[in-house]
Amino acid sequence: LKLAGTDLDQAINLLVLGLDLAGTFVFALSGALAGVKHRLDVFGIMVLSFAASNAGGILRDLLIGAVPPAAIQDWRYLGTALVAGALTVFLRRFIQKAQEGVLVFDAAGLALFAVSGAQKALDFGLNPLMAAMLGMVTGIGGGVVRDLLLREIPTVLRSEIYALAALAGAAAAVWGQFFMPATLSGILGALLCFGIRMLALRRNWNLPPPVDSA
Amino acid sequence: LKLAGTDLDQAINLLVLGLDLAGTFVFALSGALAGVKHRLDVFGIMVLSFAASNAGGILRDLLIGAVPPAAIQDWRYLGTALVAGALTVFLRRFIQKAQEGVLVFDAAGLALFAVSGAQKALDFGLNPLMAAMLGMVTGIGGGVVRDLLLREIPTVLRSEIYALAALAGAAAAVWGQFFMPATLSGILGALLCFGIRMLALRRNWNLPPPVDSA
Amino acid sequence: LKLAGTDLDQAINLLVLGLDLAGTFVFALSGALAGVKHRLDVFGIMVLSFAASNAGGILRDLLIGAVPPAAIQDWRYLGTALVAGALTVFLRRFIQKAQEGVLVFDAAGLALFAVSGAQKALDFGLNPLMAAMLGMVTGIGGGVVRDLLLREIPTVLRSEIYALAALAGAAAAVWGQFFMPATLSGILGALLCFGIRMLALRRNWNLPPPVDSA
Repeated sequence: LKLAGTDLDQAINLLVLGLDLAGTFVFALSGALAGVKHRLDVFGIMVLSFAASNAGGILRDLLIGAVPPAAIQDWRYLGTALVAGALTVFLRRFIQKAQEGVLVFDAAGLALFAVSGAQKALDFGLNPLMAAMLGMVTGIGGGVVRDLLLREIPTVLRSEIYALAALAGAAAAVWGQFFMPATLSGILGALLCFGIRMLALRRNWNLPPPVDSA
Repeated sequence: LKLAGTDLDQAINLLVLGLDLAGTFVFALSGALAGVKHRLDVFGIMVLSFAASNAGGILRDLLIGAVPPAAIQDWRYLGTALVAGALTVFLRRFIQKAQEGVLVFDAAGLALFAVSGAQKALDFGLNPLMAAMLGMVTGIGGGVVRDLLLREIPTVLRSEIYALAALAGAAAAVWGQFFMPATLSGILGALLCFGIRMLALRRNWNLPPPVDSA
Repeated sequence: LKLAGTDLDQAINLLVLGLDLAGTFVFALSGALAGVKHRLDVFGIMVLSFAASNAGGILRDLLIGAVPPAAIQDWRYLGTALVAGALTVFLRRFIQKAQEGVLVFDAAGLALFAVSGAQKALDFGLNPLMAAMLGMVTGIGGGVVRDLLLREIPTVLRSEIYALAALAGAAAAVWGQFFMPATLSGILGALLCFGIRMLALRRNWNLPPPVDSA
């Protein structure tokens, strides 16, 4: 049973890392597409890939005192962002056509970032309320920095459901940890965030999402 | 006498906390009003409330190595900002009419933030010159972040007296600590900053203040 | 011989400090000139002097956990920036005419900041890849913050050679440290960055450089 537990833990860790890098990848696509739209050079597109996918996590890590931030210590975050940026440059037309699919992944990335951000903040001793807020910051921070670099008023300030979905998911994950294992509570929080975001997209509850309007 | 001293200390601590939250409240009003002016949604207004009132202190805490920053650890700062944001949404007309009163409170908030920021920087071992600079950063940082989020050139860059009042107050508080108790020197520094700011407002020494021109 | 070694070390340290402050000075000029162009007041010009010359190093120090950042602890960085700002205000016409010379110094500052930034990141335990990236951030960060404060899309996002020169120099300095003393590898990295940047300027390989287009 112990072995099984270890195997399960390993499988979960691998899954979380995979989802984390998948979220990084999709957020990087949104940054790179915004860079293409503003006719940036290749270098600028790569910067936006990295900023859109990692600024939220870096900001969270700075605020909770986890330095150097994970995205600075672990080259895989940078690598993932650069691959997404390169794909956007070379397969631009294809990715622009696939934007609806990208939106689904974007919602998944938001859900994962919000939950993992909140749980990391809890681990570093923040109180539940501020941990939920930092989960939201982790989810939306990348988009805010992307928009600031492009001299836009951050989309998320005009399109509240996006941030509220992140906050709801993060809060649920934090709250759930009082009653159940962190893994389970994290999954429920992520599903809640993902669900709200997909519903909002389908029913047009708010302004166009970040990827479109960047 | 000792008891009296303790009572006095407690009274002073309570007063400082009260003034700190009052400053947070007024700066949050300025952020929320700027958000209303730019027709942001409720969520965007709340973000601006928090950013305008706490970004200066967060920036100071990151720079002096006091992590997690007070505004992240203590929910009362967030709570105060959200209350100010909600009041702005519901009582918008009233608050807009009361802007002259808000300006007085804004000057008080600036004075308190500048002094308390400088003293915290001193406590963390910075030299007097840089402690005074960080006091200024604490006072004006929230307004700068508010303007950046709204895609404005920060008002304070165009309206020098505002920042110089903060710098003068912070410098006086730091300088005074060589001769007198920190509490007394802080009060004198705050009065100096408040006085310069009110004089500048009355005699129109500079461009319209942040709250108006945001 | 040992004395000679110590003398050499002291000479090198003095040289590095001198170059560091020279780089600070030239970057501060670029910030102050940009402030003059946007008709900021004296205070705004000073803020831009400091931001353009020290934001890159502050960002690096925050990201590697070196708090308080050097530019906050050591008053000489602030002092250098203020002197450069004051010179720009009083000798504006002269400095604007001398812009070609300023560009050479700017390239030297970029080279030094990129190399010293990468080496500091290595010293704080970052892996070589991310150390090279942080070298680039140190070199270009000041210009990015300068442009954001002035509501411009950061020049460096549109003018890739500038950042790539910084990255190449930083990467060479990091890579060289596996084979040779850090001082030698740093010199080679700085020469590489300086060379690429000067070639790019001479052959018009990219858009106008930051100082012109700010």
